[in-house]
Amino acid sequence: MQTNNVAQVNVLTLETMNQNVRQVEYAVRGPMVLRAVQIEEELKKGVKKPFTEVIKANVGDAHAMGQKPITFIRQVLALCAYPALLEDDKFPEDAKLRARRILDGCGGQSIGAYSASQGIECIRKDVASYIEKRDGGIPSNHENIYLSTGASDAIVTMLKLLICGEGRTRTGVMISIPQYPLYSAALTELQGVQINYYLDEDKCWGLDVGELRRSLTAAREHCNPRALCIINPGNPTGQVQSRQCIEDVIRFAKEEGLLLMADEVYQDNVYAEGCVFHSFKKVLFEMGPEFSSVVELVSFHSTSKCYMGECGFRGGYMEVVNLDPEVKAQLTKLVSVRLCSPVSGQALMDVVVNPPQPGEPSYATFTKERAAVLADLAEKAKLTEESFNNVPGFHCNPVQGAMYTFPRITIPQKAIDQAAGQAPDQMYCMKLLETTGICLVPGSGFGQREGTFHFRMTILPPKEKLKYVLEKIAEFNAQFLQDYS
Amino acid sequence: MQTNNVAQVNVLTLETMNQNVRQVEYAVRGPMVLRAVQIEEELKKGVKKPFTEVIKANVGDAHAMGQKPITFIRQVLALCAYPALLEDDKFPEDAKLRARRILDGCGGQSIGAYSASQGIECIRKDVASYIEKRDGGIPSNHENIYLSTGASDAIVTMLKLLICGEGRTRTGVMISIPQYPLYSAALTELQGVQINYYLDEDKCWGLDVGELRRSLTAAREHCNPRALCIINPGNPTGQVQSRQCIEDVIRFAKEEGLLLMADEVYQDNVYAEGCVFHSFKKVLFEMGPEFSSVVELVSFHSTSKCYMGECGFRGGYMEVVNLDPEVKAQLTKLVSVRLCSPVSGQALMDVVVNPPQPGEPSYATFTKERAAVLADLAEKAKLTEESFNNVPGFHCNPVQGAMYTFPRITIPQKAIDQAAGQAPDQMYCMKLLETTGICLVPGSGFGQREGTFHFRMTILPPKEKLKYVLEKIAEFNAQFLQDYS
Ligand SMILES: Cc1ncc(COP(=O)(O)O)c(C=O)c1O
Ligand SMILES: Cc1ncc(COP(=O)(O)O)c(C=O)c1O
Repeated sequence: MQTNNVAQVNVLTLETMNQNVRQVEYAVRGPMVLRAVQIEEELKKGVKKPFTEVIKANVGDAHAMGQKPITFIRQVLALCAYPALLEDDKFPEDAKLRARRILDGCGGQSIGAYSASQGIECIRKDVASYIEKRDGGIPSNHENIYLSTGASDAIVTMLKLLICGEGRTRTGVMISIPQYPLYSAALTELQGVQINYYLDEDKCWGLDVGELRRSLTAAREHCNPRALCIINPGNPTGQVQSRQCIEDVIRFAKEEGLLLMADEVYQDNVYAEGCVFHSFKKVLFEMGPEFSSVVELVSFHSTSKCYMGECGFRGGYMEVVNLDPEVKAQLTKLVSVRLCSPVSGQALMDVVVNPPQPGEPSYATFTKERAAVLADLAEKAKLTEESFNNVPGFHCNPVQGAMYTFPRITIPQKAIDQAAGQAPDQMYCMKLLETTGICLVPGSGFGQREGTFHFRMTILPPKEKLKYVLEKIAEFNAQFLQDYS
Repeated sequence: MQTNNVAQVNVLTLETMNQNVRQVEYAVRGPMVLRAVQIEEELKKGVKKPFTEVIKANVGDAHAMGQKPITFIRQVLALCAYPALLEDDKFPEDAKLRARRILDGCGGQSIGAYSASQGIECIRKDVASYIEKRDGGIPSNHENIYLSTGASDAIVTMLKLLICGEGRTRTGVMISIPQYPLYSAALTELQGVQINYYLDEDKCWGLDVGELRRSLTAAREHCNPRALCIINPGNPTGQVQSRQCIEDVIRFAKEEGLLLMADEVYQDNVYAEGCVFHSFKKVLFEMGPEFSSVVELVSFHSTSKCYMGECGFRGGYMEVVNLDPEVKAQLTKLVSVRLCSPVSGQALMDVVVNPPQPGEPSYATFTKERAAVLADLAEKAKLTEESFNNVPGFHCNPVQGAMYTFPRITIPQKAIDQAAGQAPDQMYCMKLLETTGICLVPGSGFGQREGTFHFRMTILPPKEKLKYVLEKIAEFNAQFLQDYS
């Protein structure tokens, strides 16, 4: 027993906490964002700045940037939350139909009941039908669908299932560089070995199997690589993979005995001419049973992106293919410890996979709203690329898909020398924030080839604001180059 | 590279998956529930059974058992989901006020935007006010509030922060036996050392500091005990801790240098005369600065229980007290990796902590609905206790609070001998399920003193159904005792 004279020390300190957690880095909500929030407070208090508002172009959060929710989605959610509205004439019949179906799938007909751990069965069936339709008829079984708390949750859950072993047998997971930092953060926390493969900036952030092989071979020296993660369309890089490339990746995964994790949360966000979204599931099955019966594939989707941008509801699903049935049982057990994913997020996912059909009263409005969002994004993708490629020192690949641009920027040696402890692109972004109120994420938060510098910016601000942002960045960049030349 | 002739083996198998996950046990949604679901399917297909429906008294899920949502809560949620309703006269002004305030706290005024990782600021402020009021004015700071995906998420997050070390320095966490199996499951997954302390069934499941000390001393031989978890009111045991007992626990935690985790999700569920809910936070501060300035305390709340029973929304919060500021920063970083908890759950939590006030239009209805739910639960608590104490071989403590009864049952030696690999109370519950359709959780899923047997049953079924359940269990028990005498 401690005596009371001993000065009490905290049980939990930086030194005594879980060091794996301590090592986690997460740039998307890191120091830039903390400073952005401070600046907002300062502005509110009347502190004078060379700008009047902070523009958060750091997070892929469409509604926060002013995008309006899709009417039909929110009607169904309101009906589910408050079923008395089912008697209200102002709500269209097809919305009521969806709501009734969802409520019928809920315990006690309430979205306030816990669902089955894997998710509400009728919603998983709707997800499976959606996947079948999307993939031209390739079958999908609702027993392979797990509804999740956003895609984040499903991705972390799969990594948790995978990662084990010690030292040289420790599980390694291949991720693209640049990457979405959820992957590196989860790997650090779970102590998986992060295996980097680099996307080719000069080939429009393309994925090359030669690079996969190089990276895998090197990793085999020190760990046990077991999974390969792909983000398509890419975040932060905005590329859309060709069918050929996906085939090559699948072939590689089979040859090398890797489980594939396909992050397809941007599957509706394809803008560039000639680019089409191909799901890994579809390509896998089109390659024939030699592949489709053996390669383990987990693909992820979310309500947060695409045309709906419903991030706050934390809806998502994963589909598991060729997972060992015993492992699937373990997965189900694991997710049941946290009871279930948010039922309102599950309901939202249901509307996404089962939208109004031709002939239904909401079809026209729904279709118009969806098309408007996607057309606007496509226009902004083009605008951003063109504008950045006119900035001296910038090189910007086309934003073929997703919601981001990741231009390469030039940082003069003098600036690099003066960045001190900071990553040079972090210093660049911080100065931009202080000068213009524009909040971006430095490329170092995603990973980039040594000696190159980037930032990630979302294309989500409304067009007029985006134009302002693009101008301000160009101005700032000119001044920056001059200051450090 | 593997050659194509080698028979392809799955990457992920029972043997090659994370063995910590494999070892996790979770009885509340375990084999009993899987069988219950099967039986439901069989009934649907017309298979003849000695009963017509499965009654799931295994999960604390009020709405699934027919409890109706509180009108005001759902009105606010519908308004948040579909703000066009703010123009609708059918919704009361106080509900609109709440909805506007929540929407003002959201990015782009939409609950479809990600929130700050810690949760929406104005909701955290409302939570802090609620705590202050609940605790008779003891201050609460919204910077210490973290909104979470149900209490489950917050509990696991805290354990994740805590658990580290190897061998004898591995973090140990004290939990009550019987326990809520989230704790054992999380400890297994995170490889923390589970330290059992036993509640005293003969003293109404009371917590005794002598037993805490015994358990801690024994644990110090093989691990590094750093935290003490308490569930009050208790699940599965239904006791409500006295103020004195809480003081003793706090004193013990201080003396022994333990961080306290107080699971107070049932804080409104107190039924027995003479019992009052005291929060650990309040007692800690009433004990004076010698305690309130040093003891690290994390307390948890949820939207899932109490009078609202809104499990599906996955709302919750934790309040951290005396946490090292650097650790708090780490906690904030950790939760930011998953972006944020569901905003609809955050909104629901806001209504819970900021309900209609006297003078507001919804006050009367809200108060009536809440009182009706709690009165009904109190009546069912009493009914259950009395009924079970009339069953030969049962011993049932009063259900002072929470939503469960955990009677001790008698299992004849012959039945124990025939249970084979199964836990005897699992065999008992399985037979009950097959005979009556009633789904309970065996005591072995929660932990119990060697040689004693229990089951957990919720008191949530509607009164008439509960009466039926109590009768059926009594009948089944008589037959069981006879069969194995
Ligand atoms: C590539 C990628 N995967 C997953 C996620 C996680 O999204 P959520 O958890 O909101 O579904 C994001 C979010 O930005 C993302 O960009
Ligand atoms: C004691 C206790 N803690 C925590 C929880 C988790 O509840 P939730 O995650 O739904 O908030 C429960 C649920 O039954 C519980 O009984």
